[in-house]
Amino acid sequence: MAARLTIFAVPGIPLVQPGDDLAGLILDALGASGEALQDGDVVVAAQKIVSKAEGRLVSLADVEPSARAVELAGITGKDPRMVELVLQESTEVLRAKTNVLIVEQKLGLVIANAGIDRSNVEGGTAEMALLLPVDPDASARGLRQALRERTGADVAVVIADSVGRAWRYGTTGMAIGCAGIEPLWDQRGDTDMFGKVLEVTEVAIADQIASAANLAMGEAAERTPVAVMRGLAAPRRERPATALVRARHEDMFR
Amino acid sequence: MAARLTIFAVPGIPLVQPGDDLAGLILDALGASGEALQDGDVVVAAQKIVSKAEGRLVSLADVEPSARAVELAGITGKDPRMVELVLQESTEVLRAKTNVLIVEQKLGLVIANAGIDRSNVEGGTAEMALLLPVDPDASARGLRQALRERTGADVAVVIADSVGRAWRYGTTGMAIGCAGIEPLWDQRGDTDMFGKVLEVTEVAIADQIASAANLAMGEAAERTPVAVMRGLAAPRRERPATALVRARHEDMFR
Repeated sequence: MAARLTIFAVPGIPLVQPGDDLAGLILDALGASGEALQDGDVVVAAQKIVSKAEGRLVSLADVEPSARAVELAGITGKDPRMVELVLQESTEVLRAKTNVLIVEQKLGLVIANAGIDRSNVEGGTAEMALLLPVDPDASARGLRQALRERTGADVAVVIADSVGRAWRYGTTGMAIGCAGIEPLWDQRGDTDMFGKVLEVTEVAIADQIASAANLAMGEAAERTPVAVMRGLAAPRRERPATALVRARHEDMFR
Repeated sequence: MAARLTIFAVPGIPLVQPGDDLAGLILDALGASGEALQDGDVVVAAQKIVSKAEGRLVSLADVEPSARAVELAGITGKDPRMVELVLQESTEVLRAKTNVLIVEQKLGLVIANAGIDRSNVEGGTAEMALLLPVDPDASARGLRQALRERTGADVAVVIADSVGRAWRYGTTGMAIGCAGIEPLWDQRGDTDMFGKVLEVTEVAIADQIASAANLAMGEAAERTPVAVMRGLAAPRRERPATALVRARHEDMFR
């Protein structure tokens, strides 16, 4: 039988609240479904639950839009308070038009609305926005460490978001944080099957992991914000997900 | 136990030659490794083997570079004959600089070098280039039909390439052809877990399938150019992969 790469979404993760112990929630849900982490597993957590656990929620009622935010809200048709948060979380506005606001988020990510979502908070009526984690690579390292301490399993962690692309419709996975894995697999210098040296092949392993996890989470991704990938053959050298961000001076499409 | 999405690379696919029967090669390799296709499987084939089977090989010795190709070869440092083929396969040059030539390929794909690779032909010494299939959606439909006729299994087919991106390092999977699956899953109008109507969620299912398959194929992707995905929950409505190509008038980054 051919070697399997398997991915399963973890059922039964409760709605995450600020301050929650994500590792504990994940391990409880795994245990309840008869699963256990193994060495080499990759645990993929949706950005939303990491942000919520880290308390990255802002009440829109507390946001005072700047003049620039009001101007961009006029262009995009977006809530000026949301636009203000986007500006606070960004270093540059790349494009603004009706319904579209694409920025460079502080982490260097080119992303719509700085990755900020209107958030659902259970039982709450306040309009809340959910920002990206301050340092998703650190979040991934922390989650990895906590999972290891409690299970002994040497797992990798990827924190995943779903984003649009310049020339393609539809969202795909993007790794905004990772730990215990090489997010960008540089195969340059390896040889192909005819002995020719590969010149340009770098594979965005962590982004592909995020996309594969999205498939496993499926339509109910909001209810299943964690997936586990098993059987992945990829280098486990440590490098942050920021290694995937194209350097500004190499960007030809800004 | 949580539901599994599994992917395995099919071992033992021989080097593909022009005119080869891809369905036959895939089924022979599956059989030899003790595998069989099942209803609902997604068969992912690398673009290279589809192009080779369809004879999309061009000998560089037969290519006469135009003046424009010579000019772009000077800018990019690329072989003028390769540049000539890129121009013939493209409708527009988006960016040209040292080592970089990004075009809109005839299918609408924004892609480096029009997706053309220098090709390895077993035992051959001629310098060959391998073009994308003329109509990869038709290729996918043909492969799906052939697999179904010989096995009875109702599978989907995705023809996958690996491509770079504007703001991220590393390649990820891109579906250039598909059959038996909805490449773009439009969830707009569905409701989230709080009953709020989703406004913008369209998921590029087929591109994510291509990325997941890349992970299963791994470093030896050239030797394992076919993967099978099992357990995918996604709509099977028929739509071509060209549905993933962003319309020119909605492109903000050209």
